[in-house]
Amino acid sequence: MLDLAFRPDRRLSQPVYAQLAELLRAWIEAGRLAPGEKLPATRDLARGLGLARNTVTQAYVTLGELGFVTSHVGQGTFVAAGGSAGASSAAQGFARSKRRSAPAIASLPMEPARAFAWSGLFSLRARDLPLPAALRRERPGRAFAFDFRGGQVDAGSFPARELARAAVRAVRAHGPALTTAPEPFGLPALRERVARGLVARGIACGSEDVAIVAGAQQALDLVARVLIDPGDTVAIEQPGYFGAALAFGASGANLVGVGVDEQGLRTDELARLLRARRVKLVYATPAVQSPTGVALVDDRRRALLELADRHQTPVVEDDYDCELRLGSATAPALKTGDRAGQVIYVGTFSKALFPGLRVGYLVAARPLLERVALAHLASDFEASRFAQVVLLELLASGAFERHVRRVRRLYAERLGALRTALAGALPAGAAVTEPAGGSSVWVKLPTGTDADAVFAAARDAGVAFTRGDAFSIDGAFGDCLTLSFANLTPERIAEGIAILGRIVAARVTQAAPATSRRRAAKEGGAWTVGRSSSGSRRS
Amino acid sequence: MLDLAFRPDRRLSQPVYAQLAELLRAWIEAGRLAPGEKLPATRDLARGLGLARNTVTQAYVTLGELGFVTSHVGQGTFVAAGGSAGASSAAQGFARSKRRSAPAIASLPMEPARAFAWSGLFSLRARDLPLPAALRRERPGRAFAFDFRGGQVDAGSFPARELARAAVRAVRAHGPALTTAPEPFGLPALRERVARGLVARGIACGSEDVAIVAGAQQALDLVARVLIDPGDTVAIEQPGYFGAALAFGASGANLVGVGVDEQGLRTDELARLLRARRVKLVYATPAVQSPTGVALVDDRRRALLELADRHQTPVVEDDYDCELRLGSATAPALKTGDRAGQVIYVGTFSKALFPGLRVGYLVAARPLLERVALAHLASDFEASRFAQVVLLELLASGAFERHVRRVRRLYAERLGALRTALAGALPAGAAVTEPAGGSSVWVKLPTGTDADAVFAAARDAGVAFTRGDAFSIDGAFGDCLTLSFANLTPERIAEGIAILGRIVAARVTQAAPATSRRRAAKEGGAWTVGRSSSGSRRS
Repeated sequence: MLDLAFRPDRRLSQPVYAQLAELLRAWIEAGRLAPGEKLPATRDLARGLGLARNTVTQAYVTLGELGFVTSHVGQGTFVAAGGSAGASSAAQGFARSKRRSAPAIASLPMEPARAFAWSGLFSLRARDLPLPAALRRERPGRAFAFDFRGGQVDAGSFPARELARAAVRAVRAHGPALTTAPEPFGLPALRERVARGLVARGIACGSEDVAIVAGAQQALDLVARVLIDPGDTVAIEQPGYFGAALAFGASGANLVGVGVDEQGLRTDELARLLRARRVKLVYATPAVQSPTGVALVDDRRRALLELADRHQTPVVEDDYDCELRLGSATAPALKTGDRAGQVIYVGTFSKALFPGLRVGYLVAARPLLERVALAHLASDFEASRFAQVVLLELLASGAFERHVRRVRRLYAERLGALRTALAGALPAGAAVTEPAGGSSVWVKLPTGTDADAVFAAARDAGVAFTRGDAFSIDGAFGDCLTLSFANLTPERIAEGIAILGRIVAARVTQAAPATSRRRAAKEGGAWTVGRSSSGSRRS
Repeated sequence: MLDLAFRPDRRLSQPVYAQLAELLRAWIEAGRLAPGEKLPATRDLARGLGLARNTVTQAYVTLGELGFVTSHVGQGTFVAAGGSAGASSAAQGFARSKRRSAPAIASLPMEPARAFAWSGLFSLRARDLPLPAALRRERPGRAFAFDFRGGQVDAGSFPARELARAAVRAVRAHGPALTTAPEPFGLPALRERVARGLVARGIACGSEDVAIVAGAQQALDLVARVLIDPGDTVAIEQPGYFGAALAFGASGANLVGVGVDEQGLRTDELARLLRARRVKLVYATPAVQSPTGVALVDDRRRALLELADRHQTPVVEDDYDCELRLGSATAPALKTGDRAGQVIYVGTFSKALFPGLRVGYLVAARPLLERVALAHLASDFEASRFAQVVLLELLASGAFERHVRRVRRLYAERLGALRTALAGALPAGAAVTEPAGGSSVWVKLPTGTDADAVFAAARDAGVAFTRGDAFSIDGAFGDCLTLSFANLTPERIAEGIAILGRIVAARVTQAAPATSRRRAAKEGGAWTVGRSSSGSRRS
């Protein structure tokens, strides 16, 4: 039997039979299958590879059309004479180009001549990794007049002068430190400063409890590497942060959604889930739920901690927005009430400063933190130390604090502008969250709106936003959208939302009942974005 | 039966029975096991968890001594009354502190009261990940007068002024680009510039073939994520780069060593290995073998490509040192001869500039590169864009090229000083490689030297180096060491090596025959650092 490590990649547009044919062709060209050699019977190969017999038959037929194999009824399929050019590359190239002239080839979805057959070689994790909807759709590069997409911060208030000054000072003060061996826990001075900031946030920690990482995304990825085996269940808010789904999914987690309503994560759903099955990890954004922006109410905070304790399940608290919270009274972090050390606290400078810096941090119990540091070492040694020393200077000089104050004012003003614009522009039946922080609102379109048409028409009109299904693990929330106000002036917000409002109004195909938004909200149905935890996906 | 997701971590100093006892204690304290509840029979629990029955018995005895459970002969083991304090945390704390006063506790290797039991929760990957010998021993922070350890670059020629200038220019030119959504393939302008540099190196590629990553380590890690399933075999040079072992090991690869001699990777050994078993990936450092510094000779380059083609096995070419090569005539990259696109080319700016920047790149066929970009997104979105724009300015202004010229001269001088010093200081029987580049040499101590004693005495005398077993997947090469000359002046090199020489000479316990180094080298035994590929390790 062929020792064929072939696993079809069903996400490719190339059909499985063509993938198999491509691999066999590569083997023939490389001489691993010699001229005259008999291929396995289609039935045997299909069984060995777990494929339908017809798929193997199609692959053999394809190879026959290309002249790589010949079939003899009752005898089987054989590598054609000259099917392998052996060690002579020139001859091989010639043989290929001769074959290429055959008319059958143009219609075949194959790689160019002699291209290495990668498709059978990808790891299970890599081929199961879902491309997030947002990224599938949004190719970077295209500019929009009204860009409400997430993942940005205000470009106008970018602290260019402060950053340049900090870089100059950092190079002078820490230059030689950039030439030494890696420190996977992060630069000690930065760990110290982050710890001090967190104590002010109510989190009892010292520098030894902090690890510096390349942004919150890496924190989630490293936690996943350290805690998640393929098939482990991770409970995740729905709608929820797409980066978390990506990080846990990349480790083979079985993602199970827990609903979100106007009071945040639905702890009643979580309780049911934890009773029903072993959950390895709970991921939550208590302060500012991503993407809806709502804050987890106090009762549910307590319930979440109690559930985690009762079921001995670790919780990841992603506090990505702790500096920018809009309200003056900031609720304490979940981590503040964590006596046993089972909350993994994650923070980042991507929102308060800018995402291109790629510095974040996590606070966790020492046994976990040590594993995280080791995984960090295996992953990329450490977060860019250059970025770390520059950040250190931004923090030490007070430039960071000044910037945060500026941005908070700016975002509060923009949120106000967005809310006013939406109230005036959206037709009845649409619902909008009241965010506790962050830089976006969550909008549910009126029932019966053709969301695909809205999305397409908005883009044509220069209005870009992220669709709700980007925050779903199973394609839900297609009738929702997020509007980030971070990088748009109040005037542009008003203009863009007026356009969007007209587009939505024109596409409410099935007119919603003339219920006022307030009444709908009272009934709890307007923007209750949660859903049952029964939805689950193996990713 | 208990739904106990316990997997012992045999790398911890804490015995397995204590780990199990700790988890059960946490469950009792959390109320998951109620007072009076019967624990499973030791035989059943042992079978369920795949542990020795005695381990479970010991765990129960430990819990009994602590007062958490009571045992009744013939009836079984039960959670003690008051074993769980239920929902009342205060009562729980009280119960714990009462128990803590019992004399049995002091001797128990348990976490402090109420600490969350992490040890049973780590993923298989995380617990199997070997802590590299170098990192186990070398805690950052301690300074040595003569620091020959690897991973550093020259601190004296650190391009502080150029870096500060580049940062100022980069912030001015690219500041707003730092506020936008991630580009997991890297900044287009940097991809373009890297591609142009690689064309000059003889590699036919365009910017679309390049992905920017956070250093060579991340390139290896992302390739591992995309190609390696647990148990897949990866062939790796021995001695070989520890970061590669770490990255592939972290994905659960079965690492198999292939020997190295003065002509580089032993392709005859690799050929045998590839015939004997399915190898998913070959990792090699053809230009400057890490850590020995030798170059792969032309015949073996051809052999390596032919083997890869015949067995349809991808090859990772880690060309970490391409800018600093000492010889004037640089052999072409393996990638230059790769017509099918099965060589994954990896480069970095950590050596030519400084490691704290954390920017590297890889060149690969498009199907692989797309998966790598997606894994990059899941991992940490993108390499620090701030570091990318600053690097772009260093490249554009010519500062990079000037720095490389300066460092090449410096390293050539230091290598000369090191060789002279070693020739004068090392006793007969020691062997030293002749590196084609890089910033270190590989030394084999004379047969019969007490290497542990040399290492300890050298550190006491202020001489630090990396031991050979840091580059081994199975603890071999303990009688070898690497000496990096990157961050030491010729004077300091001479002084440090004189000290080291005296230390070695005093510890050659079993006098080696008075063979000259040259004769030993001719016989091929002096520094033939390779060994049979039979050595294998599941990591």
